[in-house]
Amino acid sequence: MNLKMEKAEVEALLDQKFPQIHEGGRCYFIDWIKPLETQMRLKADHRHLRPGGTISGPSMMSLADLAAYVIILAEIGPVALAVTTSLNINFLNKPGPGDLLGHCKILKKGKRLIIVEVDIRSEGQDDLVAHATATYSVPPQT
Amino acid sequence: MNLKMEKAEVEALLDQKFPQIHEGGRCYFIDWIKPLETQMRLKADHRHLRPGGTISGPSMMSLADLAAYVIILAEIGPVALAVTTSLNINFLNKPGPGDLLGHCKILKKGKRLIIVEVDIRSEGQDDLVAHATATYSVPPQT
Amino acid sequence: MNLKMEKAEVEALLDQKFPQIHEGGRCYFIDWIKPLETQMRLKADHRHLRPGGTISGPSMMSLADLAAYVIILAEIGPVALAVTTSLNINFLNKPGPGDLLGHCKILKKGKRLIIVEVDIRSEGQDDLVAHATATYSVPPQT
Amino acid sequence: MNLKMEKAEVEALLDQKFPQIHEGGRCYFIDWIKPLETQMRLKADHRHLRPGGTISGPSMMSLADLAAYVIILAEIGPVALAVTTSLNINFLNKPGPGDLLGHCKILKKGKRLIIVEVDIRSEGQDDLVAHATATYSVPPQT
Repeated sequence: MNLKMEKAEVEALLDQKFPQIHEGGRCYFIDWIKPLETQMRLKADHRHLRPGGTISGPSMMSLADLAAYVIILAEIGPVALAVTTSLNINFLNKPGPGDLLGHCKILKKGKRLIIVEVDIRSEGQDDLVAHATATYSVPPQT
Repeated sequence: MNLKMEKAEVEALLDQKFPQIHEGGRCYFIDWIKPLETQMRLKADHRHLRPGGTISGPSMMSLADLAAYVIILAEIGPVALAVTTSLNINFLNKPGPGDLLGHCKILKKGKRLIIVEVDIRSEGQDDLVAHATATYSVPPQT
Repeated sequence: MNLKMEKAEVEALLDQKFPQIHEGGRCYFIDWIKPLETQMRLKADHRHLRPGGTISGPSMMSLADLAAYVIILAEIGPVALAVTTSLNINFLNKPGPGDLLGHCKILKKGKRLIIVEVDIRSEGQDDLVAHATATYSVPPQT
Repeated sequence: MNLKMEKAEVEALLDQKFPQIHEGGRCYFIDWIKPLETQMRLKADHRHLRPGGTISGPSMMSLADLAAYVIILAEIGPVALAVTTSLNINFLNKPGPGDLLGHCKILKKGKRLIIVEVDIRSEGQDDLVAHATATYSVPPQT
């Protein structure tokens, strides 16, 4: 159950391969990574807000997708970049004022498919803001 | 089957209520609206790209969500803003070099729930890049 | 957090309204109900099996749907029958030989929509066999 | 674009491998198969009905899953049995009195994953009763 990549290595790889996620100012952060689980943080700013002070759906989908990407990198390493094949998200409650936390857990780590679940909450609150499941395809490793 | 809002009115309302979607430069455009259907265009730039020249999953989710939002506004008007309750997306083929087109069709227009389907293709190509379904809750109109 | 209906009442109502689920022999059982959660059991027989001894996907979808139905009845009572509006299921691992247990938790109990999550496992095993989320519409109560 | 199996061959294989779907009386029928598309028919009887004369959600999920299975068999042949990895279904309108028709189309035929879409309607009616998408994993063929 050892990780193939630690937090700092995943961060460095994201910065190098996906500089776009920091476009306009850094807002997604990795809180921690442990075997099969990670927590990502979205420090939402005006780019993510919608009328009524809520956070946009696509910002939450990005948080879920990114959290999945992080734990998959940590688990299988950078050899082959996993590809999102599907994502399902339910929006449950309006987020509160604080940061959004995306807690991602691997439900199945197969050789070809990895399925994850992501719970999204406002920091310090119990209510779920959103819940996502997503499937990633792992390319054959030669 | 008359629309409650025409294209120019929907555009004006998006600009006013969701200026964030144009943050960093305008990239989402409404091609046309007709009863129960619309087509949105994403002129992808460096913000939407990923390694290998592909377009990011969240950019496509935004395109799907926005197209749904547009057709719902056109159909029910601005009285009550619909809320995304769930979204399911399958990523099918790598996009080609051109603009991404999101073709959105209302599958069911209920009083409380509206369900849509969105086909995403690269302009001029037959293959589907992604396919989404999404559900929107329409607040009670008083 | 009191339940509107206890286990025996829900069982009696299912027997009366949905005798079809017992067609060909009783196989779905309620293990327990508590606030916002229930556990259903599928005693799989030849009707639910597929080549290789696995349990059919539709049998698991039925287990998930039924578990959701049970907890919603218990929570809101028999006044208005909830209607499934969408269901998403991921099949993760082959079930083992024992009974299948569907553990259903309400993620959001809204006035109009109830969203649930269902974990399906073979009894006595840790690995998830399947994971579902589903949305139910609650008719206006007059 | 030739099919690997014709309708009669697929029917024979289903009868042999999945006799359970005919348990209690034959109700699922293949109307036709052509490249990348098929239509299945559910002659609903008391087993599939629910209070108010509607057809149960799980019966429709079975129709969708079976239609997908049929077109995949027809396209790739019986060498390796495809496995459902996920299914998403939206229930849209109450079915009418006639047979239910499930029209299944392959959205993507990859080497490892096949993604399908299924439209479900009551025979002779325009309104969609349900809409499903599903993903199937194709085992490596040795």
